[in-house]
Amino acid sequence: MLIDGLQYANWSEKIFRQLREGGVDAIHVTIAYHENFRETVLNFEKWNRWFEQYPDLIMKGQWAKDIDVARETGRTAVFFGFQNPSPMEDDIGLIEILHTLGARFMQLTYNNQSLLATGCYEDYDSGITRMGRQVIKEMNRVGLVVDMSHSGDRSTIEAAEISQRPIAITHANPYEWSPALRNKKDDVIRAVTGHGGMLGFSVYPHHLKDKSACTLESFCEMIARTAEKFGPEHLGIGTDLCQDQPDSIVEWMRVGRWTKEIDYGEGSASNPGFPEMPSWFKDNRDFGNIREGLCATGLSTSEVDGIMGGNWYRFFAENFTPKG
Amino acid sequence: MLIDGLQYANWSEKIFRQLREGGVDAIHVTIAYHENFRETVLNFEKWNRWFEQYPDLIMKGQWAKDIDVARETGRTAVFFGFQNPSPMEDDIGLIEILHTLGARFMQLTYNNQSLLATGCYEDYDSGITRMGRQVIKEMNRVGLVVDMSHSGDRSTIEAAEISQRPIAITHANPYEWSPALRNKKDDVIRAVTGHGGMLGFSVYPHHLKDKSACTLESFCEMIARTAEKFGPEHLGIGTDLCQDQPDSIVEWMRVGRWTKEIDYGEGSASNPGFPEMPSWFKDNRDFGNIREGLCATGLSTSEVDGIMGGNWYRFFAENFTPKG
Repeated sequence: MLIDGLQYANWSEKIFRQLREGGVDAIHVTIAYHENFRETVLNFEKWNRWFEQYPDLIMKGQWAKDIDVARETGRTAVFFGFQNPSPMEDDIGLIEILHTLGARFMQLTYNNQSLLATGCYEDYDSGITRMGRQVIKEMNRVGLVVDMSHSGDRSTIEAAEISQRPIAITHANPYEWSPALRNKKDDVIRAVTGHGGMLGFSVYPHHLKDKSACTLESFCEMIARTAEKFGPEHLGIGTDLCQDQPDSIVEWMRVGRWTKEIDYGEGSASNPGFPEMPSWFKDNRDFGNIREGLCATGLSTSEVDGIMGGNWYRFFAENFTPKG
Repeated sequence: MLIDGLQYANWSEKIFRQLREGGVDAIHVTIAYHENFRETVLNFEKWNRWFEQYPDLIMKGQWAKDIDVARETGRTAVFFGFQNPSPMEDDIGLIEILHTLGARFMQLTYNNQSLLATGCYEDYDSGITRMGRQVIKEMNRVGLVVDMSHSGDRSTIEAAEISQRPIAITHANPYEWSPALRNKKDDVIRAVTGHGGMLGFSVYPHHLKDKSACTLESFCEMIARTAEKFGPEHLGIGTDLCQDQPDSIVEWMRVGRWTKEIDYGEGSASNPGFPEMPSWFKDNRDFGNIREGLCATGLSTSEVDGIMGGNWYRFFAENFTPKG
């Protein structure tokens, strides 16, 4: 079982074929960073066209059992998520609508303050807002997973505590290993995994120790240490692969339409574009490197299987359906 | 000169005629509480129809000099504002568009956390957000006034300090006189008036000492004390008159579409509707009572003239035009 907990590629037949070559059974793809509801619907439409065009390579994923179907028919199941609550605008009623359309993850914030919580780039984190509490309850009810990858520490801990169902950090690494603003401190990881949630490890260079020069050994050793601390069953992969995207996209991710000025986010004026991926993970054909690297750390085969996909499978099975 | 700094009536020919009977030269009317951009445009359209239907009673107000025209022609100039940044959604480019359409005031929050700042009903106020700083700069540039009537203390003080042009609290009273969540503490009023801003006194019973039973004497005495403390030139009236609105409207103001539960706001389960107005201010024909009450406190005629409209006139003249 091989599941990637987050990708945002510039999708094409080439990449869909690489997913098959790499044996990827399921991926969670981002279809909104700054899009409002109507714009997000356009992105659902785009995927519907791709499902129609490439029925032998990909299929829409709605439930964990769709991954079984994908495996049986040699395809990749594609699950949808948002890195920002922008698709629901200010309307709690849109949560169920978006879940019906296929959304399965929604971040409560993308770097900045949202109506729901505080992003990790704000100076002060005031935690989950009044609306945020209502929204978490509704997400719990319909089966839309709370993702706090880009949120502040306090907001993430509060979300883990308030949510009646486990939450996720789909793509980040421990701050202790690489102290980036986007990586997560131990108390944050503990709050999420302690409530049954998941952490997906990111291969995006700004989240790696030594960035693009990070070694496979260092990355896998970090995963093994995290497994010791928090339990291997709460861990997965969330590569944050942004394959074939032009640099204009990372600028748009950072500035959206909230500012007229340039904001470099994790980059800088001298390095504003997408960073180069590490040599051992360039695209979807490279998951075998991570699997081998994990086995070399001494993690058991069943632990490695869990981290490479089994844990996400179980999490999907438990958290995408409406509350009974 | 008679100017009311905030009303949200259920507009009709009857009320337009009462505005004339009361000698109201200009009013700032709310045209958005929870409306998004498109819905706000519908409200501009609604007013365009009224301007077309009642050209002898009302006219669109864009600049202070429109008030002179209104006085010369015996009409009331109507200026537009929003109690929430919802009309600009998440798009900084909409600020100039909305100003072009006629918006002159925009609250950065309505009770809850917004993308820009914290509302007075949240437990924690984290101040002006990253986007909020960008938005204030843009509002300053185009001539859209920052209104913090429903914001938290810290957010209001920070907005007063960050803004390059004076800001307003269009409708609230001193917390010291009546300790409601919506009323303003001295340090908040000082920050706003100390930077050249305005405070408009509200007649909405939840903001009054003894609510609907508040006496005219108590209200006017409070204004006189506030004038002593902060200077009469920074004060005006902002009645918050919600004449002829059904109780379903106050429920919508409170819950919008951010929650599926009932939120009573300033009301309560036993008193969920609009409160009864005080006997001395039922509608636009009653401004004479306030003027008389202010004169009885010992304020000079020119001070009273300023509070009843002259100060808003000057503020409008200085703050509605784009930065030169």
